[in-house]
This record gives sequence, structure tokens and C-alpha cells, in this order.
Amino acid sequence: MPKVEHQDATVLTDDEVRTLDAHWRAANYLAAGQIYLMANPLLREPLRPEHIKPRLLGHWGTSPGLNLVYTHLNRVIKARGTDALAIWGPGHGGPSVLANSWLEGTYSETYPDVSRDGEGMERLFRQFSFPGGVPSHVAPETPGSIHEGGELGYSLSHAYGAAFDNPDLVVACVIGDGEAETGPLAASWHSNKFLDPVRDGAVLPILHLNGYKIANPTVLARLPEHELDELLRGYGHAPIHVTGDDPLTVHRAMAHALDEALDRIALLQNSAREDGVTERPRWPVIVLRTPKGWTGPAEVDGVPVEGTWRAHQVPLAGVRENPEHLRQLETWLRSYHPERLFDADGRPVADVLACVPEGDHRLGATPHANGGVLLRELPVPSLDRFAVPVDKPGTTLHEPTRILGDLLQEIMKDTSHRRDFRLVGPDETASNRLQAVFDASGKAWQGIVLPVDEHLDRHGRVLEILSEHTCQGWLEGYLLTGRHGLFSSYEAFVHIVDSMVNQHIKWLKTSRELPWRAPIASLNYLLTSHVWRQDHNGFSHQDPGFVDHVLNKSPEVVRVYLPPDANTLLSVADHALRSKDYVNVIVAGKQPCFDWLSMDAARAHCARGAGIWDWAGTENGGEPDVVLACAGDVPTQEVLAAAQLLRRNLPDLAVRVVNVVDMARLMPREEHPHGMSDFEYDGLFTKDKPVIFAYHGYPWLIHRLAYRRTGHKNLHVRGYKESGTTTTPFDMVVRNDLDRYRLVMDVIDRVPGLAVRAASVRQQMADARSRHQAWIREHGTDLPEVADWGWNA
Amino acid sequence: MPKVEHQDATVLTDDEVRTLDAHWRAANYLAAGQIYLMANPLLREPLRPEHIKPRLLGHWGTSPGLNLVYTHLNRVIKARGTDALAIWGPGHGGPSVLANSWLEGTYSETYPDVSRDGEGMERLFRQFSFPGGVPSHVAPETPGSIHEGGELGYSLSHAYGAAFDNPDLVVACVIGDGEAETGPLAASWHSNKFLDPVRDGAVLPILHLNGYKIANPTVLARLPEHELDELLRGYGHAPIHVTGDDPLTVHRAMAHALDEALDRIALLQNSAREDGVTERPRWPVIVLRTPKGWTGPAEVDGVPVEGTWRAHQVPLAGVRENPEHLRQLETWLRSYHPERLFDADGRPVADVLACVPEGDHRLGATPHANGGVLLRELPVPSLDRFAVPVDKPGTTLHEPTRILGDLLQEIMKDTSHRRDFRLVGPDETASNRLQAVFDASGKAWQGIVLPVDEHLDRHGRVLEILSEHTCQGWLEGYLLTGRHGLFSSYEAFVHIVDSMVNQHIKWLKTSRELPWRAPIASLNYLLTSHVWRQDHNGFSHQDPGFVDHVLNKSPEVVRVYLPPDANTLLSVADHALRSKDYVNVIVAGKQPCFDWLSMDAARAHCARGAGIWDWAGTENGGEPDVVLACAGDVPTQEVLAAAQLLRRNLPDLAVRVVNVVDMARLMPREEHPHGMSDFEYDGLFTKDKPVIFAYHGYPWLIHRLAYRRTGHKNLHVRGYKESGTTTTPFDMVVRNDLDRYRLVMDVIDRVPGLAVRAASVRQQMADARSRHQAWIREHGTDLPEVADWGWNA
Repeated sequence: MPKVEHQDATVLTDDEVRTLDAHWRAANYLAAGQIYLMANPLLREPLRPEHIKPRLLGHWGTSPGLNLVYTHLNRVIKARGTDALAIWGPGHGGPSVLANSWLEGTYSETYPDVSRDGEGMERLFRQFSFPGGVPSHVAPETPGSIHEGGELGYSLSHAYGAAFDNPDLVVACVIGDGEAETGPLAASWHSNKFLDPVRDGAVLPILHLNGYKIANPTVLARLPEHELDELLRGYGHAPIHVTGDDPLTVHRAMAHALDEALDRIALLQNSAREDGVTERPRWPVIVLRTPKGWTGPAEVDGVPVEGTWRAHQVPLAGVRENPEHLRQLETWLRSYHPERLFDADGRPVADVLACVPEGDHRLGATPHANGGVLLRELPVPSLDRFAVPVDKPGTTLHEPTRILGDLLQEIMKDTSHRRDFRLVGPDETASNRLQAVFDASGKAWQGIVLPVDEHLDRHGRVLEILSEHTCQGWLEGYLLTGRHGLFSSYEAFVHIVDSMVNQHIKWLKTSRELPWRAPIASLNYLLTSHVWRQDHNGFSHQDPGFVDHVLNKSPEVVRVYLPPDANTLLSVADHALRSKDYVNVIVAGKQPCFDWLSMDAARAHCARGAGIWDWAGTENGGEPDVVLACAGDVPTQEVLAAAQLLRRNLPDLAVRVVNVVDMARLMPREEHPHGMSDFEYDGLFTKDKPVIFAYHGYPWLIHRLAYRRTGHKNLHVRGYKESGTTTTPFDMVVRNDLDRYRLVMDVIDRVPGLAVRAASVRQQMADARSRHQAWIREHGTDLPEVADWGWNA
Repeated sequence: MPKVEHQDATVLTDDEVRTLDAHWRAANYLAAGQIYLMANPLLREPLRPEHIKPRLLGHWGTSPGLNLVYTHLNRVIKARGTDALAIWGPGHGGPSVLANSWLEGTYSETYPDVSRDGEGMERLFRQFSFPGGVPSHVAPETPGSIHEGGELGYSLSHAYGAAFDNPDLVVACVIGDGEAETGPLAASWHSNKFLDPVRDGAVLPILHLNGYKIANPTVLARLPEHELDELLRGYGHAPIHVTGDDPLTVHRAMAHALDEALDRIALLQNSAREDGVTERPRWPVIVLRTPKGWTGPAEVDGVPVEGTWRAHQVPLAGVRENPEHLRQLETWLRSYHPERLFDADGRPVADVLACVPEGDHRLGATPHANGGVLLRELPVPSLDRFAVPVDKPGTTLHEPTRILGDLLQEIMKDTSHRRDFRLVGPDETASNRLQAVFDASGKAWQGIVLPVDEHLDRHGRVLEILSEHTCQGWLEGYLLTGRHGLFSSYEAFVHIVDSMVNQHIKWLKTSRELPWRAPIASLNYLLTSHVWRQDHNGFSHQDPGFVDHVLNKSPEVVRVYLPPDANTLLSVADHALRSKDYVNVIVAGKQPCFDWLSMDAARAHCARGAGIWDWAGTENGGEPDVVLACAGDVPTQEVLAAAQLLRRNLPDLAVRVVNVVDMARLMPREEHPHGMSDFEYDGLFTKDKPVIFAYHGYPWLIHRLAYRRTGHKNLHVRGYKESGTTTTPFDMVVRNDLDRYRLVMDVIDRVPGLAVRAASVRQQMADARSRHQAWIREHGTDLPEVADWGWNA
């Protein structure tokens, strides 16, 4: 942001007020027009029922306030040359943002058929809340947007995500007083403790108190002002109030407030950047109090509407049938004097556009809202430097996430000047054994630092706050503005962001269909501290269902990987970090885990996504008698141990071992881009042999993915079935029937003819299982792991 | 709570300080002992490696602070006869709460083998973080608990839920400074705007700032005190500070603070109850600052531990191998002087127990924490009074949720004196068309009221805040303390509480296995504004996956119902509201929907959970040619319309119509208590005929439920597949291939021999589909619905 000296209190000239008001009225007119009109958009003739849409749908209530903010952001951007991005938090601000981007021309540049003239205006109106048209909330289709309306709570964390490592950017974030009641929003106020005034941009929250939600007053609007101020100061902000319902007065106050806020931001940034001030800044927040549905009908059918919750959606509902409503609508629309706002062709007149900035400074045109255009490839180093050497499978142990930490450290180093890579997580980076990154970047922290603290860093790019919502929102905002990142979380608790990831996947799905949106970096999850390790936690920490949740969503976006060891984790992470427009979910353990594959083998295996591990099986050409399949680190270990037990005890049984890394490979080719053909599937799993599949999560997921396959009726899946508690790793697998002994018994039970022939082996397995459990009860630990696997040469 | 006059500032006698400190030291000793010892619990002999657990697991850091709170709550409960419940927010407070309930005797009363003597102490120690033992967080197994540790964020909303309609109860809620960073916790501070000082109890938040999370300082602990005070006052509280690391000083300060807080609570309640003061009270909050791992090792291996994040789990990690660590542990444990705290038999001495209250006043014994013992049956009136008359299926329309609203109104009325039923929702009660309840109870609101407001009520039992997390937390707390309720939500956004419902289901699953826990009322969801109606919303509002999420969890707890019309909704709701220990998910539309079943037929159908609608099919004895199955209101309508089209166009085809209300019926009997036998399933769906199943949500859910059935290979499911946008209801079903025309085409494609014979009918269907879509594009509305269904007589 250009350096700006502190200005005197803003005093708008009458002419400035007049043109700002013209812009605002034009936006209000267009917002109302979208809700009501499908013809006669400029009111060139008297309003008649046939001009009105057959279904009146949309949201007027929040629009006038958002229009005011947009108008005034235009003014200060133009006056100061500010590099700005706006986030529109109120859920149903669609009519307003669409109106403003049409006025500034970005809508027509993006969608040329909706031209900036009378004809385009009619299209703008008609498409709104119309079948196949645009929704009543901001969406990926909206120019200048990185934040979907609808589900509330994420505006402020998105704003901070956008501001990180964008030192010249001001992110204005309108927070509705409805949204302000949500948990994610409430938590994200404290994001200012993580915003670096030197290397990050600024976030200017604009808390818009129009007083009502759908049907209720809002909590914050009904706080006495001093109490609200205490709250905002407690959040670390300095409040600036703009209150009123007289447009001209509010214009003056809003202009003054925005100048004050931007001056203060510049001052705080200069202090930190030029004068080395390290005290956490007290950033400004604007509190804007204007009536809900401002300038709309004051009363309808004898009850107050403007300034009440009744203005939330469509203030006049019966316009086509009720002449009085039609008359009221016409009066309302004409109160903006469209004839003074638009010329003979329906184009906005010069006064209306006086405040609008030029080119990419327009809020609908900022490249930050189409982050893909700013995206640079992430420098992922060669994996060979981080790979663990594997001469023979299962002879060494590594903690996979710790190895990944080394890779992440290198990426963190290599991006230290570019500053376009961040690691986020809820206080778990070290717990998840990724702490090597701290040697390349500390943890962002603007709070007080004590001598005992470690790795806290004003300029750090590791973000840790105990709020999965805030982590997710930050990362989304960061990615959507063209940067890269990874979210590491305990597996069970990532469900906290189920609904957020839903919305992000929807965003990506829709964006991929918009040619003007450039691809952005994928949202990458590393889920660790997973269900199979409950040493001191327990049932509350067990949930492998995030994979199920994600796999319900658009297949073109979602990818799920379960690397079985350190090198496969490296390979999968490499792919995920380089990819675009996906949501990649990687599930990997942090506990010591056998190394199975060399780096080359891991690369080849991960590229296929699923394959036969012939060194672990006992096939001799021909079809196997049974397939032991596995996905996930713990199931893989149990399957390999089961294969060893079978080799030792039933040496003539032909066992195939198949490992699956990329879960979508199991799906039909028509249902997921990674899906295998039936030919390929049958080649791996056979058409008619028993398949014992040991899976990391809920077993029915495998059935849901593979139910169309020929061999599905022979598929027997073991997985997590809501059993377990605080216990040892081996006891966890026993309690869920995923252990090696159980798997061998499954083989014996399912291979035709084996039940009788191998009855004594089966009994040995049952005995070994019992012995192991008795040992655990007695000693509190597992028996030591086997060392001699007896692989094929 | 007994009326208490305001007291002078508390001054403890030296003797009181001494006995309080003895209790606290005993609790600290027991907390540390649980983490380390499996023998020699009373340190009667020198500590040797073999006394130490082989795996050191657990959490010391938060324990001393929680022990302090427990000790002092004991004191005030005993002194005042307060009826109190405690919620322990810090995730890993297990060692502390277990220690305290063992000291007060409730642990041994609940688990007699863990007796209050040396032998029991050894068992208490050994079971902790031991295979098959108890986790390091509070759990259902913990006496006095209604709040699981582990996943953080819900302590305060649980506390408010417990306090609603319990006017004599004080709920003390310890909030860790880690938890305080989460979104759900941050939102729930504003619960005080909904707490009625007259008819509800009090919540006393105790914000425990020990400064660190797992590996980071906490945000709130590093705020300057004046900023934290602003925040807490902004939340509507009056802060009382207790800070220190000198035990005796802190005891005096804590006693004073608790007396001050309880005096203030009594004063505020008296003002509201006796003097009619209606101003929202400024409730007290205690801010307790004590070191993390207080009284543990100050330094280990040369680095500071007490008062740092390093005290989070096990401060001395190498005790069995490292003699210095062993020595340090012994010094630490002996610093509490166990020989003065426990008698020769290992029983706590009188001084230790001096502060402990009697009987049910002990925190581990309060019946509020075992709500089932307080639960009264909910008075659900006869459904016949609310049923819609149905002479002939599909001839009248009703909004199902509006009919349910009438029933809820009656229940609300009938519980107006008992006050044990609440409706919660995120500002959607009216939007979800349940507004009839407002005639029986308004919406709880303690804020400022304006003349324009409607249905706000200081004593209301409808709770609306725009935070699904807070709604869920309130309801959970309310149910866990023995009351009833219903949560209504938009279907798509209920994913916001995915992780919370996970934890509640886990709680119920575990509780059901504990004979001492009495069953509580089920947690009932009404999901409406569902995926098939996107008139002005769009893709962001579409998600039917909560059903999938819930059906992953323990089958003994979860129930999912998709009633197809108003009367079936009544029947299902009646069952859900009367049931216990379940999570019931009901998905039902709020838009006008055809009435299919009379009340009697609906009751019979819902009792079966799935059944043949012979009036809609064209069977004539014998097996049908095809089965049209449906689950959900919109799919049912489309299937019935498809059946009508088939009857008209292919009159000799034998079509069976099956409707499924209770989704678990589709599961095998062995996997869910509601599961059908194969015999029953085959009787409904046949073994070998094509089944076209129109389902409300993701189609693969049906496969996942039915994959073991003989006829599974003939099952073809239509459902939601992530298509759709802002559009008409019919366009939504077309875009997802769930429409009547598509279903008829599916029948033609799948019934052997029909493809050729019915080619022209197939073409007619495709044409009708196109015509309908063209109409929608042109007019923005659907064609009018058919009226003549042509049912069987």
C-alpha cells in the first residue's frame, strides 16, 4: 500500500456526497430490481404485473448496507490507490455485490452477455434467483469474490488468510451481525494475534449491525454500545462507529470512518515497518449501524418492514396479485430516480461512476480474488534427499510424518523470500512430528513473548491456533488468493471442519466450470494421530470418517490417499502439494512404522495408486487362492504379518497381497477420474477369489466404492467398527477384528476347503490372539513386534 | 439455591487453609500417582523402577488447577448447601477429576472394586491410561460428569444447557485457555443473553489460564489483563481474578473469589425473582491464573517444566530407565506428604476430607450429572388431534413441518409448568414453519426488547442463536441433565455439528454400557429446508450427507427417518420424542407436500419402517416385474408419479411401490437392531427383480446399507449427485436424474424385454422431460403438478 500521511478529518464536498449517493442509489435500485423485475428494467413505462417475476425470491435486507460499503470502498480505493480485496460476509448479499460489479463494469467484462446497458440490466435482473441463474448469495460466479455466502462464519478467517504475506493488501471484511453469532466467526476475531504488520497486509473488519437475522434481533446489535466496544477492544480492535439512517449524514460519517481506519492502518504498518515497533497493533474495526432494508418500504400491510427482520427477504411479497403492493414497489423503485442514474441506453451516468476506481483496482477485478492468476508453482525438492533407505521391506522403522516434516522444512526454506507457503494446524505441528519445519520458519505470534517460549516468530509462517475452524478459514483464504499450504490435524477432530470443507469443495467444483477462474493450489490435509493409536486418549479420539465425508463430494475435486509408510507418504505429499483445484486428504501415522518400499518403488506404487506387492505374497504365476488387500499403515502391517503367518503355516496357499494408496482407484472409472476399469480391477482383485480387505476406516466404505465390481460378493472387509478405548496399538486392532490372527482366520474361513484342512492353524491363531491379549492385560504393553518376515527373495 | 445474604469478604482461618491444602495436595498426589505408579501407591517403600508403569501416559499439566477448583467448590457447596454441577472443560483433566471423586467417595461407590483405601488406590492408579482402563480425559465412566474431555469447545454451552430450567442449580464450568480459542466456546459466551435469572439456574465460568496448550502459549493468557477484562465484560461478565503460585495465598484468594461470585449470583437472582428486576444480569466470571503443572518438577534435564507447555503431559518421561528422573519423581510425590494425607490403610485422613460435602451434594454424586434419574416421560398428546385427514392419497397438500409445529406447540403447553422441553435452532424456527410453538412459548431473550419485536420472552423455552454449535451444546447439556428437546436445522448446515454429534453418540454408546447411568431422552434432529428445494439458495445449501455421517456411528444409538408426508412425520416425531438414548435424525420438508397416508396408515407404516404401498402399484398377486422404491418426501412424490405414468402407459406391467421411512431397516439384522431379516427384505424387494430406488440423499448410501442382500445386483439407485443450483423443485430432480420421467425410463431400461416393447413410451418420457425443462427456462416456474393419480381402488 502506498505510504499515506495521516490526513485531517475527512470532509466530503457536497458534490462528493451527491455522486457517492448516486452510486449508492443506483446499486440499491439494481439490487431491488434483481429481486422483482423481469422486464421494464429502467421503469420507462408504468410498472405492470407482467414485468414482475412469477416467483419473488431473494434478499433485500442486507443489500443497502453492503451497497453503502461498496460505494465507499470505491471512493477510498480511488482516492488512495489502495490495493484492496473485499469479503462480503452477510449470507445473502448477492443482489448487492452483483449490482456493484455490474456498475463498475467487471460483471459485463466477465459475462459479456450481461452488458452494462439496458439490455444487460434486464438480463442481470432476470437471471437472479431464476432457474439456472445465480443464487441470492455471493458465489464463485461473482467477480471479485473469494467467499461464498450461505453458510456463515468464515468471512473474517478468509480475510486474514488473504492478508497473510500480502503486505500491500487491505482486506475489507463485512461481517453481518447474524454471522457474528457463529462460533467460527467469534473465534476468528483473535486472528489479529497472528497478523504480522510487517510482512502481512491489513484486515479491516466492518461489523454491520442491521439489527436482525431471519426472524430475530441479533445479539451484538442489542448490546449497549459501551459493552460492544468492550468486546471489540477485548478482541484487540479500536472501534470506529458509523450510525444512522439519513443517507447524506451516513455518507459523510462513513467516508470519515474509512479514512480514519486506513490512516490508522498505514500508521500502524509504518510503525512496524519503518520504526521497528513490535507491539501488537490495535487495528481499527468499523461498526456500521444502518437499518435492515434501508430505503425499502417502511410499512407493508400496516406492519413495519424497513428496519425490522421483515425486510430480510422480499419486503413486498404479493406484487403480481396485489395492486397496492405493485404501487408500493413502483414508488419504492422510483424513489431512487433511475432516470437520473442511467442514460437513455441504460448505462450508468457519469455521476454514478464518479467514485469507481479503474482497472484492477475495481473490487470485482482484483487478481487477489482470482488467485490462480497469481499462483506460482511450489518448489518441491527432489524426494530422494528425504527418502528413507529400504533394502528389505519391514526391517527398519520410521515415523512417516517426521520424514515429511523434513520435506516441509525444505519447502518452507525455499519459499522464505516468496512467502507463499504456510502450514496450519490446531497446536499440533510438533505433536504430529512435523517440528523440523521450525528450523525454517517459526510460529506466527504477535502476542507477548516470554523467555521460556520456543519457535515463536513475528514473521513465522506456521500458524497454530486451537481452532480448526480458524485454521481452515485461514488456509482457504490463503489458497484462494493464490498461495500454497497444508493443514495437519488429528484425524478424529478434523470432522470439526466437515461443513467448511463441503463449501470449499463446492467452490472448487463450480470454479472449475468457470473459464475465467484460474486453478488454485489444492487444499491439502494431513490427518495423523489416527484412530489406531489410542495410547492415552480413547473412544472420543477415534473417528476415521472424514474420508467417507469427503468421498461423498464432487469426484473431480476430491482425492484420498492412505500411504502405508514413510516413502509413500513423501510421494503422495509431493503429488498433493503440486496439484491444483483438489482437496487432497492424506491419512498417515506419526508413530514408528515399518518401511516397506524404497523411494523408487514408492513412487511407482503411488503413481499406480494400487498394486500387487509380490514380495509379500506367495503366488506362483496363475491366480491366487486368496487376496489380502490393505489400505492404511496399520492395516498394511497387519496384512503383511498375516501373509507371513500364512506362508509359515500354510505354505502351499497362493496368497496375493494388494496395497491401495489412492482410495478412488476402487471406484468405477465412470464415477471418479482415478477409478479403475473393471479389467484392471479384476486383474488385481480377481473375479471370483475371496478378498480379505483390511481397511483403515469404516469397512462399508470399501463396499460403497466397489459394489459394482464383478468380484464384490467375495469381498470381505475388516475395518474400524467403533470399538476400542485407551489401549495398546495391538489391542486396538484386536478389538476391531483387524489383527493378523483374525485375518488369517478369515482366510481359512473363506477359502473353499481350507476350513477343515487348516483347523489346527485356525486354533493356533485364536490361541496366539488370546495370549497376546492376556499379555496386554498383565503388562500394559504389546508383545514385541516380529522381525523376520520371510519375504520372497 | 438457598437464599444467601451478602457476606463480608471471605477470610479463611488458618485451619481452613490447612485442610483445604491437605485436600488439594491429596488430589495432586493422586493425579500424579495415576500417571506413574502401578505399585507402591502410598510410597511406603522407596520408589523403584518396577513400581513405575511401563508406558507413561497421561496429562499432568491441567490437573493441579482443576484440583484447586474441585477443592474449593467442595468448600462452598458444603458451607452453603449449594446444589452444584461441575463441567471440566480442559481436555485432559481426567487424572484430577478421578482423584477428586475417589477422595469424596463417589468413585468407590460407583466402582466398588476401586475402594477408598490403599488397595483401591493401587487400582485407581493402575487402570489409568492402561489397556482397557480409563482415558486421560473425563468420560461417561467418570462419576459426576456430563462432559467428555478430548474434543474441545463445548463446556460452556453444556453448562448453560444444564442450567436452563434448573433454577436452584449452580453450574461451575472450568474453561481451559486452550479450549477458549475454539469457535464453539467463543460463541457460547453469549449464552448469558438467553439465561433467565428467574427460571434458570446460574452458570459460573471459571477461565483457567495456565498459559499453554500442547506446545504453544494461549491467546487469552498473553492478553494484557485490561484487554482480557474488556473481552470478558464485552461478553457480559464481571471478572474476578485469582492469580498466584503460592498455594496458601491462592487458597485464600480462591475462597474469596468463589464466595464473591456466589454472593453475586444470589443477589442477581434475588433481584430478578423477588424484586422483578428485568435488566440482563452481569454474571460473574472467575479468571484463575496458576502455573501449568503447578507443584510438579520445576526443571527436568536442565529445562524449565513447571509453568510451561512441557508440563502438558508427563513431566518426567524416563523414570524407569533414568535414575535421576526416578529420584525427581520420588521427591515430587513425597513433597505432598502422602503419609500425612492417607492413614495406615490408605484412606484419606479427616483433614483431607474436611471440605468434602455429603451425599448428593458431592460433585460426583449429583443426580444432575446422571440426568436419566431425573427424567420424566414427555407428555406427547394423541396424534389424532393433529393428523391431516386423508381420504385418498395425493389429493391434498400440507406443509409437514407446519403440522409438526402444532404438535410441538401442544407439548410446549403441556410442559409449561414442568419446564422440561426445549426447542433449539439457529434462527430458523419460523423459517422451518414451526412457528405455532410461539403461541405456547416465546423465544428466550434477556437482551433489550424493542416494540417491533415479536415472540421474545424472558421465560421462553425456544432457543434461537445463529450458532449451530451453541444450539447443539445447549441441547446436549439439557438432555444430559434429564430433560427433553428437539433441534431443527437446515439440512445442509447441520454438518456444522458433525463432530459434536459424533461425541454425543459416543457418550450415549458408552453410557448404555454403564449400568449406573440411567437412560436420557434422545437427541432429536429435524432437518428441513432440504436439498431438493433451492428456490433462491443454490449449490452451497445442498447437502444430504448428515444421514451418511450419522449412520457410520454406533448402530445401537443412531436412527434415521425420512417420513414422506405430514402424518408420517407426526408418527416418527412421536416415536423420537418418547425414545431414550438415541440420536434420531428426521428429514422432512417444509414445503407443501402431498398427503399420502391417513394417520392410522401412517402409524402402521412407520411402525414397520418400510412397506409396500399396494394402492400405488399394479401388482396382481404374484411377483412384480419391477419394484419402485423410495425414501424421502420428494423421491416418494416422483416415484408415485412414475408409477402413475407406468400405469397409464404400460398397464400390463406389474409394478410394486415400496416406501422406506426408517433407513436402518435396509441394513442386515446383525448390523442394526432395526435391520430386516433377509426373508423380510426379499419379501419386499424380491430376490431377482429390478429395483429402482429413488432416495433423498447420496445414492451409494442405499448400496452401503443393502450390499449384502441377495437382490443387491438388481438394485439401481437414483439420488442426489451434487447437481443443481438456484432453480425450481422439478428442475432439481431432473438435474439429479431423480424425476418421474427418468424413473420410468429406468424401469424400461431394466425390465427384461421392455426396452423394445416400450421404446415409444421411453421417447414420450424423454420428450415430456425436455418440454418441462423448456417451460422452466422460459417461465421460471414448474408446470402445475398432476392431480389425477389413478390409484387402485
